[in-house]
Amino acid sequence: MENNELKQKVLSQAASAKDASRALAVMTAQQKSKILLAMADALSKNAKDILFHNEIDVEAAKEAGLAAVLTDRLTLNEARVNAMIQGVRDVAALKDPVGEIVEDLKPAQNIDVKKIRVPLGVIAMIYEARPNVTVDAATLCLKAGNAVILKGGSEAMNSNRILAKIIYDSAVAAGMPAGAIQFIDTTDRSAVTELLALDKYVDLLIPRGSEELVNFIRKNTLIPVLSHGKGLCHTYIDKDADLKTALEIAVNAKCQRPAVCNAMETLLVHKDVAAEVLPAICKLYSEEGVEVRGCPLARNIIPEAKEAVEADWSTEYHDKIISIKVVNSLDEAIAHINKYGSQHSDAIVTKDKSAADKFLAQVDSAGVFVNASTRLHDGSVFGLGCEIGISTQKLHARGAMGLKELTTTKYIVRGQGNIRK
Amino acid sequence: MENNELKQKVLSQAASAKDASRALAVMTAQQKSKILLAMADALSKNAKDILFHNEIDVEAAKEAGLAAVLTDRLTLNEARVNAMIQGVRDVAALKDPVGEIVEDLKPAQNIDVKKIRVPLGVIAMIYEARPNVTVDAATLCLKAGNAVILKGGSEAMNSNRILAKIIYDSAVAAGMPAGAIQFIDTTDRSAVTELLALDKYVDLLIPRGSEELVNFIRKNTLIPVLSHGKGLCHTYIDKDADLKTALEIAVNAKCQRPAVCNAMETLLVHKDVAAEVLPAICKLYSEEGVEVRGCPLARNIIPEAKEAVEADWSTEYHDKIISIKVVNSLDEAIAHINKYGSQHSDAIVTKDKSAADKFLAQVDSAGVFVNASTRLHDGSVFGLGCEIGISTQKLHARGAMGLKELTTTKYIVRGQGNIRK
Repeated sequence: MENNELKQKVLSQAASAKDASRALAVMTAQQKSKILLAMADALSKNAKDILFHNEIDVEAAKEAGLAAVLTDRLTLNEARVNAMIQGVRDVAALKDPVGEIVEDLKPAQNIDVKKIRVPLGVIAMIYEARPNVTVDAATLCLKAGNAVILKGGSEAMNSNRILAKIIYDSAVAAGMPAGAIQFIDTTDRSAVTELLALDKYVDLLIPRGSEELVNFIRKNTLIPVLSHGKGLCHTYIDKDADLKTALEIAVNAKCQRPAVCNAMETLLVHKDVAAEVLPAICKLYSEEGVEVRGCPLARNIIPEAKEAVEADWSTEYHDKIISIKVVNSLDEAIAHINKYGSQHSDAIVTKDKSAADKFLAQVDSAGVFVNASTRLHDGSVFGLGCEIGISTQKLHARGAMGLKELTTTKYIVRGQGNIRK
Repeated sequence: MENNELKQKVLSQAASAKDASRALAVMTAQQKSKILLAMADALSKNAKDILFHNEIDVEAAKEAGLAAVLTDRLTLNEARVNAMIQGVRDVAALKDPVGEIVEDLKPAQNIDVKKIRVPLGVIAMIYEARPNVTVDAATLCLKAGNAVILKGGSEAMNSNRILAKIIYDSAVAAGMPAGAIQFIDTTDRSAVTELLALDKYVDLLIPRGSEELVNFIRKNTLIPVLSHGKGLCHTYIDKDADLKTALEIAVNAKCQRPAVCNAMETLLVHKDVAAEVLPAICKLYSEEGVEVRGCPLARNIIPEAKEAVEADWSTEYHDKIISIKVVNSLDEAIAHINKYGSQHSDAIVTKDKSAADKFLAQVDSAGVFVNASTRLHDGSVFGLGCEIGISTQKLHARGAMGLKELTTTKYIVRGQGNIRK
């Protein structure tokens, strides 16, 4: 596509999404549920067609030599399509966040000020690989009353295109305002650049993909960005920890799924219990195939550990590797976490309530855990009903995000002719 | 100062603020109130010294030929100093936002998930002219548990320096962690550039000043920015409006203080009542010295009005000028507001509840008013207890901002050895 043509096309899609968002914002929860359930039915009816188009992407990926892990992410099968459809039905059943009265102020007689929850407007999703994001993103945005612009990766183009067509057609037939789902149908990467310039039309950008993608987007747009953060998570075993609890949590936080953001990367152990804890935990890690790297104090106790260098404390391994540091005090543990962590999820294991309270208060992270695994930091586990991601930013959304984070608020004021004196 | 020296100085001040913010975050409401009241006392005791230093700035401004309105903003007198001190006492008396339980989730037995309100950390304030911002900003940031970095304009340097010294010394004597208030003591504008690069230390930037300053900051930093927005506000007089109410609101919204962001710039009038409303409102505006510019339909009724050109609909006059447009319907009024407005504050005057509801739902602004003046959009009027500004952004803060907008949240999770299955 010519550059100017592409620019015009993206602009007109964004403008059309903005128009649709006005109509969508005033739809009832029932109307939106009906649309979502129609989408789920249509996906179900067209499952074979989805798999057929996905196969084209998967074959092309294999031919192009895409890494196996990425090809796996790209691949749909019957079970994955069913899970995607169930996801749509689950979101349809969630409570509608729109219309919630967040604050009810009565500042004076005859005037009524309410802060109510409303949709953001237009949300643009820029994502890589997994085609299910096409459906997940559209579902969550619609549920919260927003129009959505979808820009997926080129490797999933055939899958994304058929998914977008199925959900769009069924949603419009069920009453969705035309234009409320916009699929950017090009593999030209400059479409992203065009999208980033449209701060007049797009209210929120959600990138899903590599840290490079997210950073590129943050640096090149005035549109607010909401992104899933990097996770360099710690567990600190206090001198008053219950040993069995400590071991269970340390193993779970590291091993249950090492490649995700809320898995632990560094274990801190109080010096008073290091001699007891370290050999036991090392044995368990060895059974799980985890490579252990230790500070000098740790290696005095567990000489089989490799040496941890300065870079280890700030490395998100995403793998079966752990760095272990012996600390002299709770204060040192907190200082280490605040210095090296990514403000994502950090845990203390202790029976001492005052140590727990101090850790909760002073560790500056999105989620702080006492006697629980950092792996529990998750929207579904927390009971938010869905999983949009975990934010490590401090404004608008912090930690596990639910539907509320896809909304904003407005003040509605009803007076009786009130004026400013 | 050498560039490198300045860079190091700003960096070390930001790092010191970050350290102090950790201690500040865990202080009780009582401790913070004590500090704020000590600041108020010290300002009161040193009022003469403040006025003496302010006089130096004012004289220099006059000699430099600074515009009278800016010189006035710069000028302190006894009454203004007293108002500033009362402001500190008022904030001290507000409810502490820190520690509030925003969500209380019980997703499973034996696990307790709370989303609680916590300070942001370090807030940097970049402002022009008014020296009272030095005190206001420090007061509000401290109340919400944040360390603050103050970078004022060079024209107010002597005033800002003495104010910062008085509040800092008295606050530290009353128990504030050293370093929690940082005054950037230079008139070198590159200090702002240095500050904008410190996203590792600064959690939030609040610019107060010209639109150019705010835009420059937004475009040149990765630090989240919270800013007071531009106000292009409308009042729409519906066909079912009460005439007396309509006239009162239209005069108040335009004339009570035309230079502020929540004053009205454009009046929309339904065609069915234009013949009755326009001559009456024009007479009142004429008495108030307001220049009227009208669309062709309006000028058929009030030929004395000047012609409104396309640019008028998107001009924030900040002055005794109004543009008037006759519209055919409520829908046309809503579309005009959503197209030309700044999503700040917009009002409808009507006795028709369904028209009011439609306007409230479809006007996409931070504050939407029924039978009330847009001038009422204000933190103090709304009962938030303080006035940080009015945000026209949609993320984190929208509309009148209170202390809550100077905080974030974190999840604190207390388990009994819970792990992810």
